[in-house]
Amino acid sequence: MGKNPLIVVNFKTYTEGLNAVKMAKYCEEVSIDSGVNIIAVPQIPDLYRVAGSVKIPVFSQHIDGAGAGSFTGHITAECVKSAGAVGTLINHSERRLLLADIDSAVASAKKSGLTSVVCTNNIAVTKAAATFGPEYVAIEPPELIGSGIPVSKADPDIVSGSVRAVKMIAPDVEVLCGAGISKGEDVAAALELGTVGVLLASGVVKAKDPKAALLDLVGKI
Amino acid sequence: MGKNPLIVVNFKTYTEGLNAVKMAKYCEEVSIDSGVNIIAVPQIPDLYRVAGSVKIPVFSQHIDGAGAGSFTGHITAECVKSAGAVGTLINHSERRLLLADIDSAVASAKKSGLTSVVCTNNIAVTKAAATFGPEYVAIEPPELIGSGIPVSKADPDIVSGSVRAVKMIAPDVEVLCGAGISKGEDVAAALELGTVGVLLASGVVKAKDPKAALLDLVGKI
Amino acid sequence: MGKNPLIVVNFKTYTEGLNAVKMAKYCEEVSIDSGVNIIAVPQIPDLYRVAGSVKIPVFSQHIDGAGAGSFTGHITAECVKSAGAVGTLINHSERRLLLADIDSAVASAKKSGLTSVVCTNNIAVTKAAATFGPEYVAIEPPELIGSGIPVSKADPDIVSGSVRAVKMIAPDVEVLCGAGISKGEDVAAALELGTVGVLLASGVVKAKDPKAALLDLVGKI
Amino acid sequence: MGKNPLIVVNFKTYTEGLNAVKMAKYCEEVSIDSGVNIIAVPQIPDLYRVAGSVKIPVFSQHIDGAGAGSFTGHITAECVKSAGAVGTLINHSERRLLLADIDSAVASAKKSGLTSVVCTNNIAVTKAAATFGPEYVAIEPPELIGSGIPVSKADPDIVSGSVRAVKMIAPDVEVLCGAGISKGEDVAAALELGTVGVLLASGVVKAKDPKAALLDLVGKI
Repeated sequence: MGKNPLIVVNFKTYTEGLNAVKMAKYCEEVSIDSGVNIIAVPQIPDLYRVAGSVKIPVFSQHIDGAGAGSFTGHITAECVKSAGAVGTLINHSERRLLLADIDSAVASAKKSGLTSVVCTNNIAVTKAAATFGPEYVAIEPPELIGSGIPVSKADPDIVSGSVRAVKMIAPDVEVLCGAGISKGEDVAAALELGTVGVLLASGVVKAKDPKAALLDLVGKI
Repeated sequence: MGKNPLIVVNFKTYTEGLNAVKMAKYCEEVSIDSGVNIIAVPQIPDLYRVAGSVKIPVFSQHIDGAGAGSFTGHITAECVKSAGAVGTLINHSERRLLLADIDSAVASAKKSGLTSVVCTNNIAVTKAAATFGPEYVAIEPPELIGSGIPVSKADPDIVSGSVRAVKMIAPDVEVLCGAGISKGEDVAAALELGTVGVLLASGVVKAKDPKAALLDLVGKI
Repeated sequence: MGKNPLIVVNFKTYTEGLNAVKMAKYCEEVSIDSGVNIIAVPQIPDLYRVAGSVKIPVFSQHIDGAGAGSFTGHITAECVKSAGAVGTLINHSERRLLLADIDSAVASAKKSGLTSVVCTNNIAVTKAAATFGPEYVAIEPPELIGSGIPVSKADPDIVSGSVRAVKMIAPDVEVLCGAGISKGEDVAAALELGTVGVLLASGVVKAKDPKAALLDLVGKI
Repeated sequence: MGKNPLIVVNFKTYTEGLNAVKMAKYCEEVSIDSGVNIIAVPQIPDLYRVAGSVKIPVFSQHIDGAGAGSFTGHITAECVKSAGAVGTLINHSERRLLLADIDSAVASAKKSGLTSVVCTNNIAVTKAAATFGPEYVAIEPPELIGSGIPVSKADPDIVSGSVRAVKMIAPDVEVLCGAGISKGEDVAAALELGTVGVLLASGVVKAKDPKAALLDLVGKI
């Protein structure tokens, strides 16, 4: 098919250091072989090492939206950019932000030239997130995260509803979906529902054979 | 004098990337020249790059206390260790933690072999923090942070009171103090009050000449 | 003039118990005398006592969005409704919420029949908040809160820009503004900028003569 | 037996308004009949109404530790006291606080004459909480809350260990335990382990017959 979907692989805190580099290399190999865009999202302290080891895009799992100043321990767009990230998740369900901080995080990502993926939990929140004009919103019903039940099957309406809501508010914002995604057919279903790709984690990083899992993911798209 | 104090330089979000490496190298040069222990605390995405560039200890500005799992965007002890950090601040006044998370952060630092510095805001909180048995607590009255007025002069009782409180609870825990520290005489005063060193930031990292600021800091100890 | 503005008086934690009842009675007297709609917003534990003592509307300072369940210490729409509140502030700059919780708070307010006032800090956040369809959004630049400098003078563009942004997203949502409001001319300026009223606190509750302050507020509208 | 235990009944957000008054009256009736101290802990907006309806002590589910000032939506010790509460839970596992805020909450409770019950999740946190000198700490392993499996059976060591840890740090602080408590034999077991009573919620407030549940609770002590 003609579409080239985006597959965002969130390493969560499952893998780190050399294992994170190895996981990112699997993503790179499968991306090169298949032509499918795969993005690696390692833990923040691993960004520099991972970004220096692979040619596929590397995203941060989180930024705070603070800039230069008295913000000990905060993760800034400038610093993850400097470490080699070219984009970032914002407001993941495991690292939710205050409304005002999502605004400043998206704004600081834009200023630093990072691509933003704002994560959301339902159609109403997706719509609100789209007003900030990130490159992507990623709808992930929290109850399905890590469940093994793909959102594209369990709740297709939340995906297509999110796509419609976003297109009314901000036509340039693209939609991803996540939660329970682990197979190529889940990706295909997500694309059918109007998304441009998926966000997933355990389906790959906790798989017995992560490379095989990635190959399955891109195989049926 | 006989004491060899600890000087912990927190880069906050003032400097990043190559500038963070440069700042850490100033710390290294002054540490080697003076024989004073200086610790560099860069932003978290800079840990790997900075730790790979200097021989002095590098600490993280923060850890969350989460371990391996579904904790997107959390900063784990394991991952900062893997990036080259040998210690970490915990509960800095700009990145405060829930009580239960300080417990799990100190415990996960111990498990990973990281040195813990738990930051506190008054004597009562210092005493509570000491019960967790970190290697250090660092008392920093929030109203003096970044003020240019050294805690050792503005409120010596909070420093000596913290030392006494800690020694009653956990004799092995050492005390640092911070807030407004920028000169060698401030460090000397802190040591007189029973601490083993200082935690500082803007006094060095925002100085016109950071290396000169570091030399002044270690010069009168 | 024909407009009947809304004046929302936030008691913050400045006054409580019998003093909160007295403050609410001043609001009631001035509302009856002037015909201007004044809403009293006492501390949450005072809601029942205040709502039982005055005939003007009483709002809560905050709700969490949780419903019935294992949510110890959370403030539910159902419970503040049962205590006599007919509306609530949500996401005040001193009590900011996660994006997903603003969604659930507005939804639970609707379900309980409470009027929602979602507070915001800039035009972008106002626009996002409007997507949830609360009855009101209240734009309050944090740097002007408690400053004595009225937002309607200091930053009229943030007010008129908020009105425009809201009308594009959700024409039924009305806009209030706050921060630094203390005089009737500030209210008149706010109405000129397209709002339907103001949110204020210290200008009344910390005034030497709160009733005189209220009379001044409604006198020049 | 000689002991007169304390039974703290947390209404969570399960019941409100007139139902909260009714639940508090059950607590009062059983307390008077049995001579056992029972404390009612309704939702915060219900404090005034409940405290005005019963003669047993009424506690708040939470305070923030802020005092008079610009703290919209915060729950102050002064205000819950003024509403009729004579004590408060602090740091319940469903409403956890930053370490520094537990300190200020306990201090402001003392200043207002409120009895403090600081909730904790393990022995280490219990020990830290005890340093603040609240009247009570309540150990509640989060994984057992609402489980129906009493902590006194499932994990007696965490209870007796908490008692020992507290007695070493602050002999005047008394220990309660909670999580899964629903029967008189659970209370008796808790007392055997060195506590002075229990904290419970669903075992009473979600019981088909709450008064019968209370009678069972006090019957076998």
